[in-house]
Formats: sequence, C-alpha cells, structure tokens
Amino acid sequence: MRVYDIITKTRDGLELSREEIRFLIDGYTKGQIPDYQMAAWCMAVYFQGLSPQATAELTMAMVDSGEVLTWPELGDQLVDKHSTGGVGDKTTLVLLPWVAAAGVRIAKMSGRGLGHTGGTLDKLSSIPGFRFDLTRAEFLQTVAKAGLAIVGQTGNLVPADKKLYALRDVTATVDSIPLIASSIMSKKIAAGASRIVLDVKTGSGAFMEELPKAKLLAETMVDIGAKTGRRTTALVTNMDQPLGVAVGNALEVREAIETLQGNGPEDLTELCLALGAEMLVQAEKVDTPQEGRRLLLEVMDKGLPLQKFRAMVEAQGGDARVIEEPELLPQAPVCSDVTAVGSGYVTRIHTKRIGLIAMELGAGRQRIEDDIDLSAGLEVFVKVGDEIQAGQLIAKVYGPTTEAVKKAAQKIEASVEIEEHPAKPLSLILARVSR
Amino acid sequence: MRVYDIITKTRDGLELSREEIRFLIDGYTKGQIPDYQMAAWCMAVYFQGLSPQATAELTMAMVDSGEVLTWPELGDQLVDKHSTGGVGDKTTLVLLPWVAAAGVRIAKMSGRGLGHTGGTLDKLSSIPGFRFDLTRAEFLQTVAKAGLAIVGQTGNLVPADKKLYALRDVTATVDSIPLIASSIMSKKIAAGASRIVLDVKTGSGAFMEELPKAKLLAETMVDIGAKTGRRTTALVTNMDQPLGVAVGNALEVREAIETLQGNGPEDLTELCLALGAEMLVQAEKVDTPQEGRRLLLEVMDKGLPLQKFRAMVEAQGGDARVIEEPELLPQAPVCSDVTAVGSGYVTRIHTKRIGLIAMELGAGRQRIEDDIDLSAGLEVFVKVGDEIQAGQLIAKVYGPTTEAVKKAAQKIEASVEIEEHPAKPLSLILARVSR
Repeated sequence: MRVYDIITKTRDGLELSREEIRFLIDGYTKGQIPDYQMAAWCMAVYFQGLSPQATAELTMAMVDSGEVLTWPELGDQLVDKHSTGGVGDKTTLVLLPWVAAAGVRIAKMSGRGLGHTGGTLDKLSSIPGFRFDLTRAEFLQTVAKAGLAIVGQTGNLVPADKKLYALRDVTATVDSIPLIASSIMSKKIAAGASRIVLDVKTGSGAFMEELPKAKLLAETMVDIGAKTGRRTTALVTNMDQPLGVAVGNALEVREAIETLQGNGPEDLTELCLALGAEMLVQAEKVDTPQEGRRLLLEVMDKGLPLQKFRAMVEAQGGDARVIEEPELLPQAPVCSDVTAVGSGYVTRIHTKRIGLIAMELGAGRQRIEDDIDLSAGLEVFVKVGDEIQAGQLIAKVYGPTTEAVKKAAQKIEASVEIEEHPAKPLSLILARVSR
Repeated sequence: MRVYDIITKTRDGLELSREEIRFLIDGYTKGQIPDYQMAAWCMAVYFQGLSPQATAELTMAMVDSGEVLTWPELGDQLVDKHSTGGVGDKTTLVLLPWVAAAGVRIAKMSGRGLGHTGGTLDKLSSIPGFRFDLTRAEFLQTVAKAGLAIVGQTGNLVPADKKLYALRDVTATVDSIPLIASSIMSKKIAAGASRIVLDVKTGSGAFMEELPKAKLLAETMVDIGAKTGRRTTALVTNMDQPLGVAVGNALEVREAIETLQGNGPEDLTELCLALGAEMLVQAEKVDTPQEGRRLLLEVMDKGLPLQKFRAMVEAQGGDARVIEEPELLPQAPVCSDVTAVGSGYVTRIHTKRIGLIAMELGAGRQRIEDDIDLSAGLEVFVKVGDEIQAGQLIAKVYGPTTEAVKKAAQKIEASVEIEEHPAKPLSLILARVSR
C-alpha cells in the first residue's frame, strides 16, 4: 500500500477501503507518513469529500490511534452531549445538572475555549476551588454521589486528531465536513460515549455560518454514529445572536445558576429543554422528546436541577456559596452601560464580533497558551426583533480598565443593528437529525 | 502576507497577486515555507487551476529563484525547442543540425531520460568521446565554429522547480496544467531562450494522453510566452505510436544519422520539417512555416544537415566515424526478430508499454540514479493502419541476454494489436498553437 495511491484515489473521488484509511491514519500518527502527504490528502478531501462509509472508517481509525476509555461502572448507557461552539453558550452548565436531576448519571469531559467561543472548563473555573483534575476513582465517586461530574480530558485520547487538526489549521483544510465530523465524533467515542446528543450551531456566531452546511455536518455525524453503533441525535440551533444574555466566564456561571433556579433567559432555557429531552430519550428514561420535556419541567418545579449542581460543585471542591452569593464569583473592576442611540427594531446582531469583543476584554483566548480574565465579559439584553427606544440599555460591558471597557462598549454598539423597519424574532431550533 | 491566506485564496479560486506568488515561491525556495503548506497549495491548484496571469507570474517567480543565463554573444534571438517527451523521440538530434544548416545558431541544453521516455544526452552518449560538460567559453566556441552545440544543464537553474517538482511527485499533484506549463517554461526562460518552439506530445506514449489536455497545455505555455515576452509556438503531435522505428540510445542515433542523410522514417522527417519550419520563423529567417519548410528541403538536398551534425560531433570530442561506420556505436550482444502471428491490420500500438519494455531492457531509467545500457532497445517497423501478413517481421529486440531479449520480444508482440478490420493511419500533427 502506498500513500501516493491513497492521495490519488481521494483526489479522483474514488472510494477508500478500511485498510487504506487505517494505513493512512496509523502511519501519520506514528510519524511514518510525512506532513506534506497528509496535507495534500486533506486538501483532496476538502474538494472531493469522503463517502459516508469512509468517514465512519476514518472516525474509528482516529479513535483507535490512542487510548479508548470505557465506563463499565456506569453501565453501557453513557450519554454525552457536544456543542460545536457558540457565543454565550453556557448550555452544559444548565443542561447536565437538569438531566441528572431527571435520573441520568452524567460523566462529562469538557474542554477550554478558543477564539470567539468559550469553554465549559473556563466557565467553571470561576467557581473558587472547583477542581477538574479528578482521578478516575474520584470522578466515578463524584458521579455516584452527586449524579454528575465535569472534568478535563485525561489520557492520550485521539492523538491522530490532535496531529491532524494542527496540520489542517495551517493548510486551510479545517473547513471540510467529513474531517470536522470525524474529528468531533472520534473524541466523543474515545471518551467512552455510547449515546450522543449534538448541538450543531449555525449563524454569524458559529463556525458553520450557513444552515445547509450545518445540516450536512449534523447528518454526517448522526450517520457516523449509526455506522459505528453510537446512537446519535443532532439539533441544528441558531447562533445568529448570543445564547442568553451573558458572554464571559463568571457572568455565564451566574446566568446558568439563575436558569437552574428557573429564572434564566427564555432561549437558554428552551435550548436546554430541547437538548435535555433528547438526552433522556437516548438514556431510555423516556420514549419521546415530548415525554422528556415534561419530565424536565417536573424536576425543575421541584428545584432538583440546582440541587444537582450544588452537589457537583461541592463534590468537586468548589465553593457552593456562589449559588446564593454570586458576588463571590470574580468581579470586574470596571463596568459600563451601552445604550441605544436611536429608536427602532433590532434587525441583526453580529455575533462573532460580540464573541471577539469579549475575547479582547480578556474573557477568551486567541492562542491556546493565553491567560484569561474570568471576570471580564458583557451582557447583551436585546434579541433580534426587539423594539428599542433611544437611550434604552442594550448591553453592559465588564472589564479590567476604563479604557478597555469604553472601547468594547463602542464596538458593541456597532455590532447591534437597529433599523426603522420591524424584524422577525429568530427561531432557536432549526432542524433535528436522527435515525 | 501569510501563506495560509494564499492557500485559502487558491482553494477558493480567487486571483493571486504577483506579490503573493513571489512570496510563496521565494519563501519555499529558501525553506521558510514548509512542504506541508506547499503541498496543500499544489493540491488546491490541482482542483482550482491558476489564472493565465498567475501562471505567468508563477513562471517568472520560479525563473528568478535561481541563476538566469544570458547569451549576448549570440544576439537576442536564441531559439530553443522543447518536447514533452515520447517514445523513440530523437527529434532533437535531427532537427537542430537541420535548422543550423539553414543558418540559425543553436545553443542547446538538454537533459537525461526518465521512465518510458528517453533523453537527448543519453542518446548522444552513444557516440564515443562525445562531451556535454563544456565550459561556457567552449560552448560558445562550438556554436561559433559548428553552428550548434548540445550540452548538459549547468548552473543553479530554477531551484524552485526542482524542489516543487520533487514535492508534486509524492503528493499526486504532478498532473496540473498550470504547474506543468510553468515548470517547462521556467526552465526554458532561465536557460536564456527568447523564442521557443514546443512539441507537446499526446497519446498512449505521452504524459498527456488526452488531446484536449495536451492542447490546453500547449495554449497555456504559448500564453506564458506571450505574457513574459518570449515568442512561443507549439505543435501538438501524435504519440500513439513510437516516433520513427528505433527506441533506444545507440539505435536512435543511427536512425537520426540516416534521417540527416535524407533516408529516415517518414514520420520523423515530417515532424522535424514541421518543428524546424517554426524555428526558422521564430529566428526570423523566414516569414512563414511554408517558406521554412522549403528552405529546410533545400539545405537537405545539399547535404548540409549531416555536415552540421558532423561538425558538432567533432567539436564536442565525439568520434565522427560513427556516421559512416554505425557499427562503432555500442552494439547489443543479443538480437531477436519479432514476427506477426496472424494476418490483418495494425489497429493499435501500446506506446507507453513499448517505452517501458525498452527501459526494462536497459535503454532507460526507472530512477534518476540508474545506469543505462546504450546498446539496448528495439525497432518497431510497423505503424497503425499497416496491412500485415502472418510471419512478417514487425520488430527487432536488442539486449544484453537471450533471456531478456526473449521476454521483451513476447511483450512487444502483445503490444502491437493486429486485427482483421482495417484501421486508419494516424495523423502526426494534431494542432498548432501560436499568438
């Protein structure tokens, strides 16, 4: 078998065999296949795509490039959730305690944020004392005790993906559906998930800006799930405006706690209900998403989600007083209001820009090695379609210095378009993909 | 400027600027841009192509990556000829003395052969004593004295092409018209050619098997010539059967000498007339190819081409007695006839296979470092369309051992298809491209 022939077949749109894909991924992971051949292959995939079967084979070849976790202690129904990343996306913080409150044990591995999107670990870092570096025993103990645990990734999971992603990142081959889909799914599968619920974001604050591509990504991942025996459901959801109000780590934790108390923003609550209902179906707690939704509303009425959250925070060493006293979360020294210059309707929110403004304030990272400021961020109080009066408060900015906050406030103002003609509110859930 | 952005623009089919192309080629030549980014770029070019302007800019950026030869001693009209390579293609050996006989000074740099196609330097090596490693002074002196000289490439010409070609060769990105065209033209231009005649071969013995692609390559190179101020004409010619009869170094020199005496195969003679006429037009010796053809026939009648050839051989240290005594050329120890099994018409000659059979006999190289056997090769006496009787001699094989010759003879038999129905003879000149 020769790499050259595999590149040629891919370039010419011919089907790759399981053996060819394994040869390629194994050889690349072991350093036997040079970067330049892999780069040419990635660009060929960019143009020609991969068949559904080859995409599933690629996923499993990547899974098998490293350690594969199993969780016999948790039974065979480990349900995982993944979001492709958005602005203000604190869903995990609300969704997992909520689903745990409905009786599903949750053992979740999360990551850090990069660029205009945040990461769950960064957000949870706002809670003083919270630990992610649990041993396997501690992790399982926390799941047993609290019903859920959220930790950082451990072990040498999917080294092929790490190497391949770094290469794609510098060769303009990131934006390929089969490569994105296999990257995401391989990480979920290697972490031991057997049932997966995906939140594929689309719109101006998402990586997949266009709806048809986001749908295709969702379908491709659901198909990988079906072909590899991991039941997978995907919702394609709107990221044409920030999710909820808060963008920034401590601010988002505060909003998550409010939502777990039943007082959160409507869109965030709705998204958690929709994703949670799918997770309950996957976990075989209920038969339909409708039943799942009813069960979730029931447990919320009883105040159980916040109890689960508190139990997890305590079990992972965090200061649970932040629930009643949010001022114990990191506080930014400077805060400034942003008010509407004119009256009218919000027609558009430049969501990626909002994410980047938050990043520049210190809430996110440009490079993996950058430090972040947990207190920094912003709140955007308006949604597309809202009627606005001149002088109305539309956003708040939290940052380290007056200058930084002032600069960010100006940019926020320019990122929220207010026009005379009315605009329709945005739909939150755009598609559901299941098999 | 970032390589990443150049790859992205190329991938998306956007126009590259002169500065971007120079940044890419300069950086790659200097080792500042890694192979993997260049490989991704090459694959993007494979799929998206390059505009005519970008292709010309790429050519000149490659030219400027190394030494550029000038020949003020020879005036400003150095005419060069290039063939994309074929089987039995000894055109240069006949064409250049012939054109020199018509009064055009020829200073030619040639190369070695690889794979199923031969190289002019290898063929000339058959003449005992012939030297290619002339100094510049000797080279110019030979041109002045004999009217022509043929040497090997000297100097650090187009290092960008050497590096890029090696990369394309292992990343399945050789087969891209703008990359092939810029590679060929950059080498001609760096060698100091200001007027160029191209022989673009197409058919089963050529690199460009399909006529439309060969035409596109011809048009692309002529366009590069126009955009860089090098008047260029291309003929697209048939390589669906070997050119002439002989395939193999000493055998081809012998055939070239016969053709210079006016007794060569019809197709070889015709091709030299067609290409030679274009060279005379380029050199401004005549106004039209028709006049060029008449002039070439005139000088042939006077026996001048062979005189030029003899003068060159003598000036370059070769044993000119080979002209009258071809048995002084390397002789293979074993020779075998190949006869037709049945009667009928030649419908097809698998020309690349013929080239590979000659290579396996020792006439060519599989790798650049391989040695070759100057005496080995074969003669194919039939052309597509010929009527054949069972038992008729169709080929002769020359090789080092009885076994090798026997094996080759069997393969030759299988490479010449004889069927009952008649077949049309092939046209030699398929297109002419000029501006």
